[in-house]
Amino acid sequence: MSRVSNEFAHPDLGDVELDAVLAALADPHRRRVVVELAAEPERERTCASFNLPVARSTRTHHWRVLREAGLVHQRAAGNTSYLLLRRTEIDDRFPGLLDTVVSLTGATAR
Amino acid sequence: MSRVSNEFAHPDLGDVELDAVLAALADPHRRRVVVELAAEPERERTCASFNLPVARSTRTHHWRVLREAGLVHQRAAGNTSYLLLRRTEIDDRFPGLLDTVVSLTGATAR
Repeated sequence: MSRVSNEFAHPDLGDVELDAVLAALADPHRRRVVVELAAEPERERTCASFNLPVARSTRTHHWRVLREAGLVHQRAAGNTSYLLLRRTEIDDRFPGLLDTVVSLTGATAR
Repeated sequence: MSRVSNEFAHPDLGDVELDAVLAALADPHRRRVVVELAAEPERERTCASFNLPVARSTRTHHWRVLREAGLVHQRAAGNTSYLLLRRTEIDDRFPGLLDTVVSLTGATAR
């Protein structure tokens, strides 16, 4: 089951498989977004604030992959779209995963 | 730089990016192989001992992805091929990653 929020669908974390989360995190741009969000987990950020060196269509694809993996909540307001890390839910479903990936992304070459 | 061992090339872990390791682990069959190897980390297992429900060509692809991600060492002997988890090297390069993934694979639906 999934909830719709301002046009974006978000899965329940209980329905998300580890496969999808690891695949989402395997991309360095998506991982960078997650790591940056994790640095201020309560803060919603605009999609535009992530300076990814990719085409607009690719950015849109990345937001969708992150949403479908249950990693972020995306909300549209006017022409702006916001991302929030689903930190507590992810930690409940996949204990230790975000901490490990955040720590490794800082420690190794991206 | 990579070393060649009985026809199979294996990367130095220092040259392996987190992207490749997460992508390798995102596939449930490859993850199952890694988790099973991790249960007996000193034990070399034959490729044939992994009962993956996939075509032979897909199995060969999985071994290659695991090798290229630095996760396994593969050795051929006659008609048989063996896999060994590069446990110590992976733990040195990506501390906590294998433990987390093994633990989550046991805890959540595969």
